[in-house]
Amino acid sequence: MNTNNYCVIMAGGIGSRFWPRSRTACPKQFLDILGTGRTLLQQTWDRFSQICPKKNIYIVSGTQYKDLIKQQLPEVAENNVLLEPMRRNTAPCIAYACYKIMARNPLANIVVSPSDHYIGDLTGFIKTIEKGLEFTATNNSLLTIGIKPTRPETGYGYIQIDGSNNENPLEINQITKVKTFTEKPILEMAKTFLETKEFFWNSGIFIWNVQSLVMAMKAHQPDIDILFSAGKDIYNTPKETEFINKIYSECTSISIDNGIMECAPNVYVIPAQFPWSDLGTWGSLYENSTKDINGNVIAGTKVFAENTNGCIISSSDAKLMIVNGLKDYIVAEADGMILIIPKKDEQSIKNIVNEVKINLGNDYV
Amino acid sequence: MNTNNYCVIMAGGIGSRFWPRSRTACPKQFLDILGTGRTLLQQTWDRFSQICPKKNIYIVSGTQYKDLIKQQLPEVAENNVLLEPMRRNTAPCIAYACYKIMARNPLANIVVSPSDHYIGDLTGFIKTIEKGLEFTATNNSLLTIGIKPTRPETGYGYIQIDGSNNENPLEINQITKVKTFTEKPILEMAKTFLETKEFFWNSGIFIWNVQSLVMAMKAHQPDIDILFSAGKDIYNTPKETEFINKIYSECTSISIDNGIMECAPNVYVIPAQFPWSDLGTWGSLYENSTKDINGNVIAGTKVFAENTNGCIISSSDAKLMIVNGLKDYIVAEADGMILIIPKKDEQSIKNIVNEVKINLGNDYV
Repeated sequence: MNTNNYCVIMAGGIGSRFWPRSRTACPKQFLDILGTGRTLLQQTWDRFSQICPKKNIYIVSGTQYKDLIKQQLPEVAENNVLLEPMRRNTAPCIAYACYKIMARNPLANIVVSPSDHYIGDLTGFIKTIEKGLEFTATNNSLLTIGIKPTRPETGYGYIQIDGSNNENPLEINQITKVKTFTEKPILEMAKTFLETKEFFWNSGIFIWNVQSLVMAMKAHQPDIDILFSAGKDIYNTPKETEFINKIYSECTSISIDNGIMECAPNVYVIPAQFPWSDLGTWGSLYENSTKDINGNVIAGTKVFAENTNGCIISSSDAKLMIVNGLKDYIVAEADGMILIIPKKDEQSIKNIVNEVKINLGNDYV
Repeated sequence: MNTNNYCVIMAGGIGSRFWPRSRTACPKQFLDILGTGRTLLQQTWDRFSQICPKKNIYIVSGTQYKDLIKQQLPEVAENNVLLEPMRRNTAPCIAYACYKIMARNPLANIVVSPSDHYIGDLTGFIKTIEKGLEFTATNNSLLTIGIKPTRPETGYGYIQIDGSNNENPLEINQITKVKTFTEKPILEMAKTFLETKEFFWNSGIFIWNVQSLVMAMKAHQPDIDILFSAGKDIYNTPKETEFINKIYSECTSISIDNGIMECAPNVYVIPAQFPWSDLGTWGSLYENSTKDINGNVIAGTKVFAENTNGCIISSSDAKLMIVNGLKDYIVAEADGMILIIPKKDEQSIKNIVNEVKINLGNDYV
């Protein structure tokens, strides 16, 4: 394995759209939500273990998840677990990891990946990542993995390429210059995106060499660059935690998409050669899970469904759950909290969780 | 109060159609299922306390409910709590109580009542019962309280009177001779019953003087009579429990309806002057409970329903229940067991509970 190849796994999300299964105290990435026997974080680790030397894999998460990470990934060295003292979105998270890696290896070539996604084909995944790493090793480019869209999804960001020279540009299957980065669109816009055949979904998996990332930070997020550059002699020393705790509160909270990818001129996309989902919602879990003959996805040993179709039923702690006569619903239970909602309304779960938090407090989210 | 008036409250049912709220370990009659602050048993006791001297009120139930009864009705003397060692349906239960009361007072005039019904108007109830007691005090009759039916209910038994001399016989509002007793009919038959205007619902509340009951037992259930007559010098002595435990296993299991009321020639009906429901199902609880503006009956403090209409939502032990987008469903939780079923399918709950018992064991029912 190329010892310049690194991986940064971002594991700081709180997965509120998977409530009540996903909780602040144990979010989605720490759950075996696909029922494979490994949590999503463990699966992400397993995948990257085949791409980078294990000592080159870093996990960034919140301080409160330290024990969960240690428990789920006992072989990861303490220095490879980066703990953010507060949530500051992805740009500071990525800066922390990349600047720290640069202090060790200025030739580092880095994949940055969420920890809670579904990847359908390991071979295709490795092929895509390796092709990307090969490209960024010798190019000053910010590379992102694009997913060919299959529906006008409003929950994802989109990546537009220049399709003027090609009848079906998404099929070219090669690394291509990005024209625009677009945030989650409204439905009408998403439909247009699908029709133009110039738009990939943004997977949130990025590849770059550390010098390119730092240059982009200097150009587009100079405040973040100044804060994290100041640590170059402190990373990987006993003073790192203190330093990070100090600068994080001063840090802008901004995503890498907004802060860098939308502004940088050197952004490229590589089409994914694997099925993918961000598993952002119960619906996307449904799409990517094995269904019973009635089209139900059922998780939980003591769940019995009758006259029930197209449902996702998840029971974690209930003694018994009997569901009769439901069609296209989410029925989720965990820790004595029960949610019943039509699948089509899953986007409102985030708001429901906010309401719960405001009205009942943190014990419920 | 007339010291010859007695009441026997039957509290041995297991209320399986209210599962999971009603459990074998704590059936419906021991629950405050209407949210009044008193359990159904306590409410039954409260009602009869206004009709008979309290020392004349007897409770018959299973041995396993001894503590629950003591807890809920601390003022009831131990000798007034009759514990059946096994379930033998209502005829032996009633025989036990009546033969025991006769040993104390051969002039006893007795109301026998279930413990788990809804009675909508206390004044009307007292009026009806007192009128009935007055009648049975001087007549060798078996009197039953009839309810004017409002729908072709298939969950109740029916009582036919002779309507040949009256255009609308159910409106006569006087004690009338019964022509037939009919068990739970199929829907078509129930519809016919409703149209003929000759049929009351059988409330399961009976009134008779003890001599009439004993004569009816001798005539129609001689085996039961022999068993319980043998105890006349044992009732109300320390040997009663041993005696009862011995004879119960020899006892036929038969209902008072099948065993006596359907055969006896001296059966009369008194129309109820009060709203009534047997609260036999979630649906009947729904009918008799206060609804919110969306027509939902919600029991449980941490239940939130949105876009939800016509539902009955009962949460006993859940930390939180959020229901979105349901119409005409039963959603019931208790002790970590959850049932979701359309209201129209509530008759299948009994079968579901049987399945649960067979497949998962007694801990679940």
